[in-house]
Amino acid sequence: MDFHGQPRFPPGFRCASRNCGLKPVEKDLALFVSDRDAAAAAIFTRNQFPGAPVLLGRETIRGGSLRAIVVNSKVSNVATGAIGLANARRMAAAAAAECGTEASRILVSSTGVIGVHLPIEKVESGLRGMTADLTDDPLVGARGIMTTDTHPKALSASAGPATITWIAKGSGMIEPNMATMLCYIFTDAAFDAPTLDRMLRRSAHVSFNMLSVDTDTSTSDTCVLMANGAAGPVPEATFQEALTAGCLRMTEILARDGEGAEHLLRCTVRGAIDEREARLVAKSLVNSPLIKTMVHGADPNVGRILMAVGKCFDATIRTDATDAWVNGHQVVRGGARLPFDEAAVRAALATEVVDLEVSLGAGDASATAYGCDLTKGYVEENAAYYSS
Amino acid sequence: MDFHGQPRFPPGFRCASRNCGLKPVEKDLALFVSDRDAAAAAIFTRNQFPGAPVLLGRETIRGGSLRAIVVNSKVSNVATGAIGLANARRMAAAAAAECGTEASRILVSSTGVIGVHLPIEKVESGLRGMTADLTDDPLVGARGIMTTDTHPKALSASAGPATITWIAKGSGMIEPNMATMLCYIFTDAAFDAPTLDRMLRRSAHVSFNMLSVDTDTSTSDTCVLMANGAAGPVPEATFQEALTAGCLRMTEILARDGEGAEHLLRCTVRGAIDEREARLVAKSLVNSPLIKTMVHGADPNVGRILMAVGKCFDATIRTDATDAWVNGHQVVRGGARLPFDEAAVRAALATEVVDLEVSLGAGDASATAYGCDLTKGYVEENAAYYSS
Repeated sequence: MDFHGQPRFPPGFRCASRNCGLKPVEKDLALFVSDRDAAAAAIFTRNQFPGAPVLLGRETIRGGSLRAIVVNSKVSNVATGAIGLANARRMAAAAAAECGTEASRILVSSTGVIGVHLPIEKVESGLRGMTADLTDDPLVGARGIMTTDTHPKALSASAGPATITWIAKGSGMIEPNMATMLCYIFTDAAFDAPTLDRMLRRSAHVSFNMLSVDTDTSTSDTCVLMANGAAGPVPEATFQEALTAGCLRMTEILARDGEGAEHLLRCTVRGAIDEREARLVAKSLVNSPLIKTMVHGADPNVGRILMAVGKCFDATIRTDATDAWVNGHQVVRGGARLPFDEAAVRAALATEVVDLEVSLGAGDASATAYGCDLTKGYVEENAAYYSS
Repeated sequence: MDFHGQPRFPPGFRCASRNCGLKPVEKDLALFVSDRDAAAAAIFTRNQFPGAPVLLGRETIRGGSLRAIVVNSKVSNVATGAIGLANARRMAAAAAAECGTEASRILVSSTGVIGVHLPIEKVESGLRGMTADLTDDPLVGARGIMTTDTHPKALSASAGPATITWIAKGSGMIEPNMATMLCYIFTDAAFDAPTLDRMLRRSAHVSFNMLSVDTDTSTSDTCVLMANGAAGPVPEATFQEALTAGCLRMTEILARDGEGAEHLLRCTVRGAIDEREARLVAKSLVNSPLIKTMVHGADPNVGRILMAVGKCFDATIRTDATDAWVNGHQVVRGGARLPFDEAAVRAALATEVVDLEVSLGAGDASATAYGCDLTKGYVEENAAYYSS
């Protein structure tokens, strides 16, 4: 699919971002506004300690309609009890007042440290007058929701007569079990909320749900799709295809910007007995610290591929039919390591995008998981995240 | 339990180690010999790509009797097909000839790089005359089986009139699903093979099976218990207690010497609905990269504890009853972060042994998992393991 060279919003959507004092100087507050009520669907983290904004969001999304999304970074408002939930409601009310709508039309997100109370007064005063800053540049909003991301993340593409725009953040605590961290998707196509929900789940299943930076599932994961209908109806298949393509691309962007990452790692498993097992083995590969460090060091220690396949104890593995490739170079045949050109495999592992492919020879199902290498940068960033 | 100040063998067991040319100068070949046939039990990796020595070992241990164990380091003889299995058999035959017994009484282990053929001639000539070097110092054998270990690992203790000696190696690719990497246990107590097997499985269940350095399950894990009967019968309960105590201590020694590790991390979960869930949540904590880096940096980012509990999607978590402690300092009560003395928690996290305790308030079951922090040293070691 062709993405626009410069990301843009569908007509009717705009955004703003500000510093409201949660961070020293960087943007820490973002607002995404539709000029009319938009049909909406959302999926949230499966973590059993969801943040207050997720608890509120599940309530809000039942209405199937949103006017705006308000997001702060630095503090995630998780593990904050009844005060946290009250603060999330105050944040929705403040955004509703600024946008001239009701709190039930506002989706709230917070991202950052767990277990710290949200300085709600700063957020409330930050929101006052913020609609005056609204712009049609998605990167402005994307910048306002960053935490350890190294760059703002926004994409847009056409789907028939409509436009779809993805804005996301996330680089650590990422093995979403629905959709990673924060991803907001805007379109002017006309769909009702149940259809949006169905399409969003289908796309997330093969994209965000196959992403893992570090096996750790955030307490704040939120993925929202808002459709204002301005472009009229679009065939569902056309829209679904574009939606999935953009979600996959955003998944790769998030994986490549994983904390400390220097490589995008894609692990594809073919020949599995069913999709569940293909996904399981692909996730085992992408999550293995020894695979991740092998990619980091461009060290052709490809026996580790078999280790990571074989530790899926309950998967159907035909050890004598298992083959593996590194960026197209076959390194394993029939469960044993092949003699291969080490310099070529070393060079393949040193490229920015590394594709590991495994064929299990057991069936016809396949799946791809997305991740990154494990570096000293990851350790450094996460050994002092709270204190820094 | 009191371990001996200096580890020693039970009467009738001795060992030797040599350099046979697999490594430049360090010891790479070890032999553990009983002066008579000893009843024996063993458990092996559940990885679906077991090494040739594991395949052969499963066949050998069916006899329930061993005279010797021969081990090489540097090359694991995994993913080496029919040649690998033939080489493992040649290694058993060479050790049998040296020890004056049959190949069916020799347990073979190999540890090191996956997917490289064993230079079997070097091993065969290394074994010739090796019984002349036999000594009663367990550390000599422990030194011969090291890979990335920073020190040789041996323990001994009394169990009634008998002695038990543990010799182990292992520091990476460790989340055993039976017993970690290589651990050899010798005793002069008299038990038959089925009883040894039952006792070994019980002890491994709470010790080696709760150890994880990096979530990666080795293709070579082997844990063997040999009993020569010289000390006569010992009550099973007495022996089981001592066996478990030593396996737990060895588990802690292996965890603390995890690749790059600077801390021993113990995660205890209480109040779980059953043992399966207690083990699941304890493993989730000990394996979380964000918990491991928090410990590494002594960063009191304790919200991550709730994240790692909550990502056990299928466990019974009472979010309003979940409490957590760091080395005795309570940091979470009723699922929310408590105000706590940050300096004290920072100091607690900076100690060599860090205990994280979580109470789920859902039932009476408990479990402890053993691991270590995640450091730049781990990344460095594993980004060039094959090449170095």
